[in-house]
Amino acid sequence: MARRRRSPLPFKIEPDAPPPLEATAERRVRFQEVDPLGIVWHGHYASFFEDARVAFGDRYGLSYLQMRDSGFSAPIVQMTVDYLSPLAFDQVVTVRARAHWSEVVRLHFEYEIFHGHQETAAWGATVQALVDLEGDPLLTWPEFMQDFRARWEKGDLSDA
Amino acid sequence: MARRRRSPLPFKIEPDAPPPLEATAERRVRFQEVDPLGIVWHGHYASFFEDARVAFGDRYGLSYLQMRDSGFSAPIVQMTVDYLSPLAFDQVVTVRARAHWSEVVRLHFEYEIFHGHQETAAWGATVQALVDLEGDPLLTWPEFMQDFRARWEKGDLSDA
Amino acid sequence: MARRRRSPLPFKIEPDAPPPLEATAERRVRFQEVDPLGIVWHGHYASFFEDARVAFGDRYGLSYLQMRDSGFSAPIVQMTVDYLSPLAFDQVVTVRARAHWSEVVRLHFEYEIFHGHQETAAWGATVQALVDLEGDPLLTWPEFMQDFRARWEKGDLSDA
Amino acid sequence: MARRRRSPLPFKIEPDAPPPLEATAERRVRFQEVDPLGIVWHGHYASFFEDARVAFGDRYGLSYLQMRDSGFSAPIVQMTVDYLSPLAFDQVVTVRARAHWSEVVRLHFEYEIFHGHQETAAWGATVQALVDLEGDPLLTWPEFMQDFRARWEKGDLSDA
Repeated sequence: MARRRRSPLPFKIEPDAPPPLEATAERRVRFQEVDPLGIVWHGHYASFFEDARVAFGDRYGLSYLQMRDSGFSAPIVQMTVDYLSPLAFDQVVTVRARAHWSEVVRLHFEYEIFHGHQETAAWGATVQALVDLEGDPLLTWPEFMQDFRARWEKGDLSDA
Repeated sequence: MARRRRSPLPFKIEPDAPPPLEATAERRVRFQEVDPLGIVWHGHYASFFEDARVAFGDRYGLSYLQMRDSGFSAPIVQMTVDYLSPLAFDQVVTVRARAHWSEVVRLHFEYEIFHGHQETAAWGATVQALVDLEGDPLLTWPEFMQDFRARWEKGDLSDA
Repeated sequence: MARRRRSPLPFKIEPDAPPPLEATAERRVRFQEVDPLGIVWHGHYASFFEDARVAFGDRYGLSYLQMRDSGFSAPIVQMTVDYLSPLAFDQVVTVRARAHWSEVVRLHFEYEIFHGHQETAAWGATVQALVDLEGDPLLTWPEFMQDFRARWEKGDLSDA
Repeated sequence: MARRRRSPLPFKIEPDAPPPLEATAERRVRFQEVDPLGIVWHGHYASFFEDARVAFGDRYGLSYLQMRDSGFSAPIVQMTVDYLSPLAFDQVVTVRARAHWSEVVRLHFEYEIFHGHQETAAWGATVQALVDLEGDPLLTWPEFMQDFRARWEKGDLSDA
C-alpha cells in the first residue's frame, strides 16, 4: 500500500531564506491508537506531529509555555496529511518536524513520519498563526520571536 | 480571527460529473475536546469530519460495516483542514460532508463545519483509497459501489 | 462475557436523603473508539459517563459553565468502572447518570451504560470535589449549589 | 489539593503469594491531554496506566501481541482511579504498574502516578479477565501464562 506524497506544501518556500531547522521525536504506537482495521486511526497523526513540534520547541527554546508567558499563542490554521503506508500497533516511529523560514507572521512546519528511521509512513504540514491572548492576529513578530529569527538568520541555531 | 479557505481541493472536480451528494451531522463540543487555550484542539476535527461521513453512509447505504462485509475498506490517504474560526466548549456545530464524483477508484469528500448552521468554522477534504482485506488497492470499483454509482449517476440518490 | 457489578459505591448512600436525580444521554459508538479487539477501548468510558453528566447539568441547570461563572469547578477525585459486556462499533448506547444526595461538599454520581435501552454494559461511579479557582476545596456548598440542593430536598426537581 | 487514597483494592491480596512484580514508564503530559481547567482530563489516566502495563509486558514478556498469538486476550473488567493531585501541561510523570499474584484466572494490577519520581499524583487498579478469541472466559491459565507464573513463584523474575 506504499504511496507517494501528493499534496502541495500549504506555504511558500522563500528562495533566499535561511535553511530550515529541524527536530525529531520518537513515539511508540499505543493500543488505543489502533482502529478495528489494525492500523493507527488517521486522526491521531495530528498528535504525532505535535510531539515533533514539542521536540522542536525544546531544542530551539520555542515552547507553548514560553509563548504564553510572552502573551501570545500559535493556533494551527492549516493542516495537511498524506498517509503513505499504515502504522501498526507497538511499532516505534520517528517524527521529524522541519521549520521553514516565513516572512509573514506565521509558523510553517513540514513533517515526516518514518517507520523506524527509514521508510516514510506519512508526510504533513501545518501553518500556525500568531495571535494575542484575545485571539487577534499579530501583525509583527513578537520580540521573543524576533530574537529567535535573528539567530536563525545568522546561522546560530544550526547546531542547537 | 475569521479567515478564509486557503487550501486547494486535494482532488479534481470532474467537469461533467453528476452533482455532489451530501449529508450533515450535529455535534456538541465536549469538555475533553477543549484545550488549555479554551478552543477545540485541532487534532479532533478528523473526528468531526468522520461523524459527517458516517451520516453520509447512513443516508446512502455506504457504511464501514457494509464495506467490510463486501470485502474491502476505505482508509484515508489524504486529509486537509483549514481552521477558520475556533470552536468553543459546549457549542453545537453542524458538519456537512459532500461527496464529489470520482472516476478513479477513490472516495472524495469535502467538509464544512458550521457554528450552529451558518458561519463556517472550518473547511476540509479527504481522499480515501479502496483496498481489499490484505490492504492492496482495488483497481476497479467493487460491485457494491458500482450499484451506488449507477444510482448516483442516474440521479436516483438526490432525495435519499 | 456477561458479568455482574462487583465494585462497591465509592460513597455512602445517606439513609434519609431525598431520592436520587437522574438524566440520560444517547451516544453511538465511533470507529475511532474501537480497538483492535473490536470493542470500545476501556479508557473511553469516562467520556460516556461525562455525556450523561452533561445531560444531567442540562436538565437541572448545573453545568460546567455555570459553575465556572460562580467561581468554582468540580474536578473528579474518584472514578470506578465495572465493564460487564463489551460495546461494539456503531451500536447506540444509553448512558444514565444518577446523582446521590451528599452531605459532604462533593458530587456523587452513579452511572449505567445500556446496550440500547436494556441490558447493562457497564456500571460506574464518580466523586467530584468542589474547588475554587485556585484549586482549594470548598468547605461549604456555594450559594449556587445551596439553591439547587434546597429544591432537590423539597422535591421540586423530580420532574425537571 | 493533596488528597489520600480512599478506594479499596478491587482484588484480594493473597496472604502467602509471591511478592508483586513491577515496571515503570515515563510520560510527558501532552497539550491535547490538558483540559480548559489547565489539568489533565481525568479520562486520560487509563492511557497512563496502560503505558505502565506495556512496560510491564516488555519487562516480563507478557505483551498484547504475545497473548494474541497464544489465542487469548485480557480485556479490562474493572478499573478504579483516585485522583490525588492534578497533572499539568508538559510535566514528566512516572507511572508504576505493580502486578499482584492471583489464584483466579485474572490479572491484578495496581498503579501509581508520580509527579517526577516522588509525590503521588494518582493511584489506581485494574482487573483483567482472560478470554479466548470468541470472548469466552478462560477457566484455567493458558500454557503461556503457566510458565510465567511458575517463574514468578520460584522468584526467577525478581530481577528481570
